[in-house]
Amino acid sequence: MISAKIKEKLASGSAIRKMFEEGNRLKKIYGEDKVFDFSIGNPDLEPPKEVADALRELADNPTPGMHGYMSNSGYESTRAAIAEQRAAQSGLTIDAGAVCMTVGAACAMNDVLHSLLDDGDEVIVLAPFFMEYINYIENHNGKVIIVQTDDKFMPDFDAISKAITPRTKAVIINSPNNPSGVVYSSEQLTKLNELLKAQDHVIQVISDEPYIDLVYDGLTVPPVLKYIDNVVICFSWSKSLSLPGERIGYTLVSPNNADYEDLTGAIVLSNRILGSVNAPAIWQKVVEKSLNAKVDVANYEHRRNLLYSNIVDAGFEAVKPNGALYIFMKTPDGLSDTEFQDICAKYNLLLVPGASFKRTGYMRLAFCVSENTIKNSREAFAKIAEELRIKK
Amino acid sequence: MISAKIKEKLASGSAIRKMFEEGNRLKKIYGEDKVFDFSIGNPDLEPPKEVADALRELADNPTPGMHGYMSNSGYESTRAAIAEQRAAQSGLTIDAGAVCMTVGAACAMNDVLHSLLDDGDEVIVLAPFFMEYINYIENHNGKVIIVQTDDKFMPDFDAISKAITPRTKAVIINSPNNPSGVVYSSEQLTKLNELLKAQDHVIQVISDEPYIDLVYDGLTVPPVLKYIDNVVICFSWSKSLSLPGERIGYTLVSPNNADYEDLTGAIVLSNRILGSVNAPAIWQKVVEKSLNAKVDVANYEHRRNLLYSNIVDAGFEAVKPNGALYIFMKTPDGLSDTEFQDICAKYNLLLVPGASFKRTGYMRLAFCVSENTIKNSREAFAKIAEELRIKK
Repeated sequence: MISAKIKEKLASGSAIRKMFEEGNRLKKIYGEDKVFDFSIGNPDLEPPKEVADALRELADNPTPGMHGYMSNSGYESTRAAIAEQRAAQSGLTIDAGAVCMTVGAACAMNDVLHSLLDDGDEVIVLAPFFMEYINYIENHNGKVIIVQTDDKFMPDFDAISKAITPRTKAVIINSPNNPSGVVYSSEQLTKLNELLKAQDHVIQVISDEPYIDLVYDGLTVPPVLKYIDNVVICFSWSKSLSLPGERIGYTLVSPNNADYEDLTGAIVLSNRILGSVNAPAIWQKVVEKSLNAKVDVANYEHRRNLLYSNIVDAGFEAVKPNGALYIFMKTPDGLSDTEFQDICAKYNLLLVPGASFKRTGYMRLAFCVSENTIKNSREAFAKIAEELRIKK
Repeated sequence: MISAKIKEKLASGSAIRKMFEEGNRLKKIYGEDKVFDFSIGNPDLEPPKEVADALRELADNPTPGMHGYMSNSGYESTRAAIAEQRAAQSGLTIDAGAVCMTVGAACAMNDVLHSLLDDGDEVIVLAPFFMEYINYIENHNGKVIIVQTDDKFMPDFDAISKAITPRTKAVIINSPNNPSGVVYSSEQLTKLNELLKAQDHVIQVISDEPYIDLVYDGLTVPPVLKYIDNVVICFSWSKSLSLPGERIGYTLVSPNNADYEDLTGAIVLSNRILGSVNAPAIWQKVVEKSLNAKVDVANYEHRRNLLYSNIVDAGFEAVKPNGALYIFMKTPDGLSDTEFQDICAKYNLLLVPGASFKRTGYMRLAFCVSENTIKNSREAFAKIAEELRIKK
């Protein structure tokens, strides 16, 4: 009775559920801190003080209509504040009309893809990538075109160029990246812009930016608006303010976008008809009041350092991530990802094979787990390296 | 560049925008309370005290993880409380697993339709109906099959029977109804159940229930779970608790549903991949604490009575609505809806032609406007009746 497509997705989803259940099973046997579960990427820091203060202020001083409908694009004042912030970062002039408040970045991406895609239109994604992109594209009858990045997980411009066809409507980028943690440079963004603008038709860049505030080593992420013209940003405060359960984010269409008028209108309409209608009212107000706040990024950086040391000190290889919440370590030579996963599981160490991000030969480890879990896992990494006779 | 489908929808949406702008133009000229704008159905009462109290309690006493991810289906405790409430109303045994918390009823309906529809599957809607159903069905490549109700806006079972084909996947019902305000009786629900269960394949009833708590004249709405087996409820607190801007609702699959297992799983998956991920965390907690609260329904009933009197006292015809926020008045004989709309506009009276609900010969008036506007409009109704020589 249910649709054939969803039936297939339900069946394939059970692999992740199994891993989740295996983690819970092991935790019951060995205790929470003796199972090193790096499989789940939930931001675990509390929101900054500004968020709690803003929420309390709103709740303590209710005003008429504060929970009522507003425009489908969200409150004008919230959108203007975001436009101003992005204008200051990029040096562009940005109007509130460029912004549509959304139910997180996931709805933002669905709004954009629904606005862009005719049946069979192609969207290029750069592997490794967050697998939900496949669902988001297929929701709107699009075709997923996977292009691998290079061995540092950076865009391979030749490969992208070869993948472009007359049906290519968009390229999704995600920097800082889930799962690799890499951050694209301004040169790479410029090169992508040049490549796409040299084509016969407009190709949109969809910039998925939930991790943009989670960067380490003193880095700042180059503002995509400065380097790419035909771009739509999809942002969420899930990580920046640690509000993943509250579902608040936005889309922003570059003022330089060739389809600015059509796209801004289509996104607001999509936001309505896909069912969001608008982003939650109270959270629009909270983020407006917390626009310059951030979670304790140093805390994530500290845990990244600990986990990265565990991995490389044991003799394994990994590109050190500059951002996001993950390390994408190399699977040791001679082993398949699932073979390596099974060996790790013997030491209660749980990680996600690269196939889940369409890049085999790697495993994702999320470092948004307790510092103790990371510290306690150090021995497990060493023992696995010993079993596999990994050379330091 | 944007998709052909959305381009078409953008163009057709401009009629409603024009009406909205016309309203604003008139208000600037004549003043807010001299324009009788019955065109917009925004719930305008404040949420009950329980909501403000619950929100303040949560904001004043933050707990770790309260804004974090939970299961895609929502908090177990919220779902259990809803299951218990619906069980008490219907006499059925209902598990928390039947419920999935959603971003309002609009996302709920998209989740259900995405779960059910293969390309080209048919969904029957009973006119007059809320026009967004067309978008929701088409979002998931379904085909809209419009079946007219009788002259009291009640289901025409012969017409429904004739509309059923092997591709019919679902029938959407909406009682209390937007725009007619009618409430289906238990006999009508039973008859619908019998008709659908006599078919060769399972046909789901999607019961869109945002107005279920807004009923008048001492009526209660018969619980659809008691009378229909293959049913999924889509609920929202937009009207019951006046929280339309906060986007909180749920789906509930009947324990008697032949596809219970598949459907409950598919809805949660759809909720994730369509982009909601989960319903806003804080509002799940608020509604759980406010489950027995309601807006001041008597206030809506009072305004319904005033507007209904204006209409019938002037000599116009209308079925008196038992629920929801609208009166669906008959367009006077000899006039098209748009001709009548133009005459009303001369008296600063704004209403929506029945074509917007796929039932011509009628006009929708929303009574969720200020009592003063309704009172002040009495004279306009009388003058229009005079101009049209309507007999009392």
